[in-house]
Amino acid sequence: MREEEDFLGKKNLPDSAYYGIQTQRAVENFPVTGRGESKEFILAYVMLKIAAAEANMELDNLDHEQGSAIIKAAQEILGGKLLGEFRVDLFQAGAGTSFNMNVNEVIANRALEILGHSKGDYNYLNPNDHVNRSQSSNDTFPTASHVAIVMEADKLMETLHKLSSSMEDKGKSMISVPKSGRTHLMDAMPITIGDEFIAYSEAIKRALNRIKESRNNLLEIPLGGTATGNGVNTPPLYRETVIKKLSKLTSLPLLPAKNGMEALQSRSIMVAFSNSLAELAVELSRIANDLRLMGSGPTSGLNEIVLPPVQPGSSIMPGKVNPVMAECMNMICFQIMGNNSTVSLAGQAGQFELNVMTPVMISNILETLAMLNNYLPVFQEKCIEGIMANKKTIEDRTGKNPSIATLLSPKIGYSEAAKLSKEALKTDQSIKDLVVMKGLMTMKEADKFFDLDKISKNPYK
Amino acid sequence: MREEEDFLGKKNLPDSAYYGIQTQRAVENFPVTGRGESKEFILAYVMLKIAAAEANMELDNLDHEQGSAIIKAAQEILGGKLLGEFRVDLFQAGAGTSFNMNVNEVIANRALEILGHSKGDYNYLNPNDHVNRSQSSNDTFPTASHVAIVMEADKLMETLHKLSSSMEDKGKSMISVPKSGRTHLMDAMPITIGDEFIAYSEAIKRALNRIKESRNNLLEIPLGGTATGNGVNTPPLYRETVIKKLSKLTSLPLLPAKNGMEALQSRSIMVAFSNSLAELAVELSRIANDLRLMGSGPTSGLNEIVLPPVQPGSSIMPGKVNPVMAECMNMICFQIMGNNSTVSLAGQAGQFELNVMTPVMISNILETLAMLNNYLPVFQEKCIEGIMANKKTIEDRTGKNPSIATLLSPKIGYSEAAKLSKEALKTDQSIKDLVVMKGLMTMKEADKFFDLDKISKNPYK
Amino acid sequence: MREEEDFLGKKNLPDSAYYGIQTQRAVENFPVTGRGESKEFILAYVMLKIAAAEANMELDNLDHEQGSAIIKAAQEILGGKLLGEFRVDLFQAGAGTSFNMNVNEVIANRALEILGHSKGDYNYLNPNDHVNRSQSSNDTFPTASHVAIVMEADKLMETLHKLSSSMEDKGKSMISVPKSGRTHLMDAMPITIGDEFIAYSEAIKRALNRIKESRNNLLEIPLGGTATGNGVNTPPLYRETVIKKLSKLTSLPLLPAKNGMEALQSRSIMVAFSNSLAELAVELSRIANDLRLMGSGPTSGLNEIVLPPVQPGSSIMPGKVNPVMAECMNMICFQIMGNNSTVSLAGQAGQFELNVMTPVMISNILETLAMLNNYLPVFQEKCIEGIMANKKTIEDRTGKNPSIATLLSPKIGYSEAAKLSKEALKTDQSIKDLVVMKGLMTMKEADKFFDLDKISKNPYK
Amino acid sequence: MREEEDFLGKKNLPDSAYYGIQTQRAVENFPVTGRGESKEFILAYVMLKIAAAEANMELDNLDHEQGSAIIKAAQEILGGKLLGEFRVDLFQAGAGTSFNMNVNEVIANRALEILGHSKGDYNYLNPNDHVNRSQSSNDTFPTASHVAIVMEADKLMETLHKLSSSMEDKGKSMISVPKSGRTHLMDAMPITIGDEFIAYSEAIKRALNRIKESRNNLLEIPLGGTATGNGVNTPPLYRETVIKKLSKLTSLPLLPAKNGMEALQSRSIMVAFSNSLAELAVELSRIANDLRLMGSGPTSGLNEIVLPPVQPGSSIMPGKVNPVMAECMNMICFQIMGNNSTVSLAGQAGQFELNVMTPVMISNILETLAMLNNYLPVFQEKCIEGIMANKKTIEDRTGKNPSIATLLSPKIGYSEAAKLSKEALKTDQSIKDLVVMKGLMTMKEADKFFDLDKISKNPYK
Repeated sequence: MREEEDFLGKKNLPDSAYYGIQTQRAVENFPVTGRGESKEFILAYVMLKIAAAEANMELDNLDHEQGSAIIKAAQEILGGKLLGEFRVDLFQAGAGTSFNMNVNEVIANRALEILGHSKGDYNYLNPNDHVNRSQSSNDTFPTASHVAIVMEADKLMETLHKLSSSMEDKGKSMISVPKSGRTHLMDAMPITIGDEFIAYSEAIKRALNRIKESRNNLLEIPLGGTATGNGVNTPPLYRETVIKKLSKLTSLPLLPAKNGMEALQSRSIMVAFSNSLAELAVELSRIANDLRLMGSGPTSGLNEIVLPPVQPGSSIMPGKVNPVMAECMNMICFQIMGNNSTVSLAGQAGQFELNVMTPVMISNILETLAMLNNYLPVFQEKCIEGIMANKKTIEDRTGKNPSIATLLSPKIGYSEAAKLSKEALKTDQSIKDLVVMKGLMTMKEADKFFDLDKISKNPYK
Repeated sequence: MREEEDFLGKKNLPDSAYYGIQTQRAVENFPVTGRGESKEFILAYVMLKIAAAEANMELDNLDHEQGSAIIKAAQEILGGKLLGEFRVDLFQAGAGTSFNMNVNEVIANRALEILGHSKGDYNYLNPNDHVNRSQSSNDTFPTASHVAIVMEADKLMETLHKLSSSMEDKGKSMISVPKSGRTHLMDAMPITIGDEFIAYSEAIKRALNRIKESRNNLLEIPLGGTATGNGVNTPPLYRETVIKKLSKLTSLPLLPAKNGMEALQSRSIMVAFSNSLAELAVELSRIANDLRLMGSGPTSGLNEIVLPPVQPGSSIMPGKVNPVMAECMNMICFQIMGNNSTVSLAGQAGQFELNVMTPVMISNILETLAMLNNYLPVFQEKCIEGIMANKKTIEDRTGKNPSIATLLSPKIGYSEAAKLSKEALKTDQSIKDLVVMKGLMTMKEADKFFDLDKISKNPYK
Repeated sequence: MREEEDFLGKKNLPDSAYYGIQTQRAVENFPVTGRGESKEFILAYVMLKIAAAEANMELDNLDHEQGSAIIKAAQEILGGKLLGEFRVDLFQAGAGTSFNMNVNEVIANRALEILGHSKGDYNYLNPNDHVNRSQSSNDTFPTASHVAIVMEADKLMETLHKLSSSMEDKGKSMISVPKSGRTHLMDAMPITIGDEFIAYSEAIKRALNRIKESRNNLLEIPLGGTATGNGVNTPPLYRETVIKKLSKLTSLPLLPAKNGMEALQSRSIMVAFSNSLAELAVELSRIANDLRLMGSGPTSGLNEIVLPPVQPGSSIMPGKVNPVMAECMNMICFQIMGNNSTVSLAGQAGQFELNVMTPVMISNILETLAMLNNYLPVFQEKCIEGIMANKKTIEDRTGKNPSIATLLSPKIGYSEAAKLSKEALKTDQSIKDLVVMKGLMTMKEADKFFDLDKISKNPYK
Repeated sequence: MREEEDFLGKKNLPDSAYYGIQTQRAVENFPVTGRGESKEFILAYVMLKIAAAEANMELDNLDHEQGSAIIKAAQEILGGKLLGEFRVDLFQAGAGTSFNMNVNEVIANRALEILGHSKGDYNYLNPNDHVNRSQSSNDTFPTASHVAIVMEADKLMETLHKLSSSMEDKGKSMISVPKSGRTHLMDAMPITIGDEFIAYSEAIKRALNRIKESRNNLLEIPLGGTATGNGVNTPPLYRETVIKKLSKLTSLPLLPAKNGMEALQSRSIMVAFSNSLAELAVELSRIANDLRLMGSGPTSGLNEIVLPPVQPGSSIMPGKVNPVMAECMNMICFQIMGNNSTVSLAGQAGQFELNVMTPVMISNILETLAMLNNYLPVFQEKCIEGIMANKKTIEDRTGKNPSIATLLSPKIGYSEAAKLSKEALKTDQSIKDLVVMKGLMTMKEADKFFDLDKISKNPYK
């Protein structure tokens, strides 16, 4: 056991602990979920600590021996060490002070060891005075949040690009299969099932573009603003220097906040990014719903496609196969929308110089990103790529689709066409047959006029 | 033109105006939607003013001549007069001070006339000192809200009772039509379409019961608490007296707040009531979705039922009929859920002794109630009551439903039954035929074993 | 009375009615709110009808006499006539078929009169066949939605630009008033109250930029896609022609949909625009909260600023003035967030070739825009512009702010500085006085070191 | 390695695995969060399996040797064994089929061992045929959900009861400290700080009562309904028997579903329970906000109370202490509201005979319950219980509160009282002093008239 002290008193800590007294207090204060910050966020924060040490050293604001030890300790963490020392719960002190101090303490104690001192000998190197030098939780926590989000967003954009391509490929493979369009769920003018998937592909691309725009806005970071955004306790040139260092470490073109104070008081850039993820979820949910409907059956459903079977569907009904990949997609989307609500609520809770609710924002955004990055490739592989069209059913049902009477409107008017449509339905004939029977066209004319292949094409893509 | 004055200065008002200077200020300050409080809310507020005058008179806290004039003026409004004088926008001062003053001013000016004075001669009868005596916006606005909601909720409960009965009747009329059950949208064990509607009926009943419970909680009112809930500036016995008077006027068994201060600082009773409406919307939306799916087609959909046609469905596709009544239901449900979000957000914005966000809560709750009370009877008449089952389609598709293999599991085990199910599907046979073909049963045994009428019944209702 | 007929039967209509049978059916089917589409939306839709007639005429797809009559009738509506003829409720048939037909019928009947025929003589000019030629509700309703939103968004951007400038001006006027910063609501390093308002100004600008981006995406329109997005029943070159015509009429650089089918199946562009409005609401709500807190008091609050008094605050507490303009802002923001929930819910309800929930989306988005366009200028004038700083209170309270000990950290370390901070608070001294008393600095050094004017500046803006 | 097979093919499994092929498929299909179902849910599900085995045995529907082995295996799990074998992610197949099969497989394999067979020898005892006998995922997953929620809700109710009592005790300890009331955040009639906390206590009690009501509704369970709610493949008397068994095992008075089909198609009971948790969050968030505001300062805030310091507040500002316990409470509340949104969205996604979205509902509800059960006792101990009133500040500020002029209204009218209020503020005097100075009362009369102790009391509690 070693003892540490802060201005509120003393605490015992295990000898092996790299975290210190403030982490320990947070562990005791916030036993909420048992889950700590994600690895992605830890690493982003640690990179930031390296950048700060480098900048301080470059600006003669930090002793080189101390600075080097800090950097070395931090690099060990980037290399995968000491991850178990980050013990603060996802739910913690406002503004993430607890987690910032956890990072400061772990780095300080490891750096102390590197320098040949014992853990806890903060006289030689101090979590607040050295590791946290020129920093506050208030500028570092949101900065690390931006960085972690951008990195995960970059993975997501790659994932979405692949998903969109996969849908497009699937569409192209079914481009010549006409089927009844459906508007209001009712039979409408024919389209091809391939074009339907190409449209899905476009919807994903569009969602991807919005994510990209809102991701780019995250490159602007509050770093260097410290406590209230105006950079108190930082040396001249610190802000540009530390951002340059962090840009290099992260390979991201990071930018200083347009207004240092606004960058602390408002978390709107994260709110907007979260919304762009929710917009994606709206599209994914819609597409998953369509897939489940198209695959419904086999005897009492639409039965237009077969989704690849991935597991038995029922514990009681033998042979049943369910659209479980799409269902899981739906559930993930509901979670994303709920997570987004949480982020928006937190976003409006900023007060004066700071929005202290950033911890709940970052954890929800990173959870959403992780779910998407984990699941979408599996969804693509196990659901989209294996979809097969039920050509027979599609053809049978499309043949008698009465909405094809639409084509007659320009010739005979909407009212007369409506009458034919009604009659066709009542007499269970196709519009084509009815038109021929009534002598309005010869069979040859009708074949040409009602050519499904021609009608169903989407020229606008 | 007449001139009125308050402690912020003077304003000119049209001679004809019964509203006064504070209303005029609010009109200028809050030109938000152009829509004012609903008639239901105006009347509830006016009833409260009568109750207050009666209680004050009974407790010798208001001159009888003044009190009688106030009551007479208020009764004229209850009779439908002067409704155009309520000019404050739905969005207004926090806590509804603007609207309370609008009510006070209209009543005061009409009472002045009744007493033979001119409008604006507030020396004889004053909006604040007499009409608002023993009251604050802080206790009266939420009290009027509770009363107006309860009255509209009572209409809704009647409406929901009828809707549920209508669904039950529809269910009973189709009780002997077996159809494929659907779980995960895939063919499942047969049920009857009648039982499906009876289950919908039960879902509505359950939602109705929750609305009833949360409606009952609204009977507890903050009236008598005045500014901060502890009844400042009220005479002894006022609280019980005014609530007794208001109970009589409204025919509602109103109760005083358990804790007068909590009743002002928290609007949780309204938040909870709003949630119960959203819970209804969840059910209505789900049922509307089912109806639209069941009615999809005619050639390329499930086509199990025909929803009554109420208008041409398409401006371009002749003869098309869409499930527009159910679609409108869905849109109303989305609005209700959004309105409920607004109410919850406002609910958490209470601070210290008051939640000032009540105006946006009451307007959303009353809008939701009005939409439901207006539309549900039409939905019932023009959608539910006219639904017809497509027995032929249902029968054809149910016959080959492979999930019926479930019944074999207890005999031959899940694995063997799954094999049969797969084979039936592959060979396009019914399970029954397959079982007979394989010699597992005689046709007679199979007919009995797979008796759809027996299997499909719901004994648990 | 005149009689009209469609494929569902006959209806009587008043002789004076320009709307026709399909409007009448919708009025009977959807008595939901009693409110119809906004004037902005009606006019956008009517412009679209002109563009369609012009394009059809140019492409020899519409008789010039008929086309000219359609255009003339439509222009009369643009001029403000016949607005009372648009009688369909905001809640209506999915996809807005009811309202599209209302527009078609009003134009057709007025055009018939222009041509010397009677209303209802659809043989000469038909709502479906001529006014709606080359169109479907499915492409026109969302197109008119995009156009109406863009037009209102342009007003909003102008409004926001002014609001942001006003906040910046207010900030500049108070730029030299240092005050305690507040993080976690607790005393933090000083800032100037002027910089606080400049940061608000920046937050509004940022929200404005996001609205601009999402507004620009709305310029892409589905027009020309007709029933399912692939342009059935349109003549060659129609899509580009009609969009060119509509661009000219609206003075907007409209673009055809990248993928005609995606443009009908997904309403994501509107969902994203709605989110950008909600993001603005998050900022406005946060700022309104800050203003209310800063203005709290006068004796028991923060009392840093005085918000301009606009109306007496209480019906019971004389002399009380409340921050009613900011409260109304908060309530509007809650409504906007609720409206946005509704839009998102509707957005995910698209199915197959169409999202039929557009009507509830457009009504909520336009309501949000109207509330902002109506209220923000008043809020700016009656709240922001009149704000005054309470310099005396601010100065008194800032003087003893113990967080100023932060400046000592780089000299004496965080721990020692914390001790001084604690001691200052306990002994009710300023940090400066304590430092001098302890002989750590001379008074002259301390004056320079703790120079509030220097410390409080925000160099990062 | 052992090999297992289902109707989709074969899979290898580690020899040590108690889970089987269907679990393995789910692990591969759903690598979403890396987190599995909570222990509480696992145990509830396992209890249900015991009840089913007991009921089947009692009804001669399960061999006693097999049944006993199933029960013994299940009891081992209840005793804490094999918990690592539950490997299905929180996000999984719709309806929770994956997790139900995971439970079936683990129990089956352990039971096989107990019977002296090898894992995977399903001929002797089969996950589907024996462990799952008379069951479906469709009735068991929601039943286990109800049971797990009720158990955690019972803990929460105990927790809330304590929290409410703690607030009440805190209130009683400060019952004689008058302070300025605040409405609209502005000075209002005085109250006591003690009554404020007693009102919070009442708000928690009210939230608790709503949770209790919605918890009671969860006692009605779908068990016995199997695939579509009508009990297919269950022996006579099974439903009542299994519910009786489960009631005994859980010590809960469980009831059969009123309508077996409604109980599968609708998850409204869970939606409503989730709403009651969100209603609690609204209150907790509001109270946490009040506490943070009351504790703001020390020099530039309201400074009415001191929240117990639990950790240094800032990494950069020495000596700063922040209201971190209340901030964490706010963040938890935002998460709860977001989780509730997810649950509502899932609730409306039911289709036909089943709502397959139950997995995302149960995980969110149980997460919310766990956060509350974990954190509220700490919040109570480390925040509420240690709160101290700053009597000096409170007294100073309350003395000059001008809203006390309210008391004069009944004597001199609202207008005259408003003038006095304005004058008091302008001349920086108390209303009392002003009244005496103006000769309206003697000092003795004024002392009695403005007796803060009397005025501030809340008689309505």
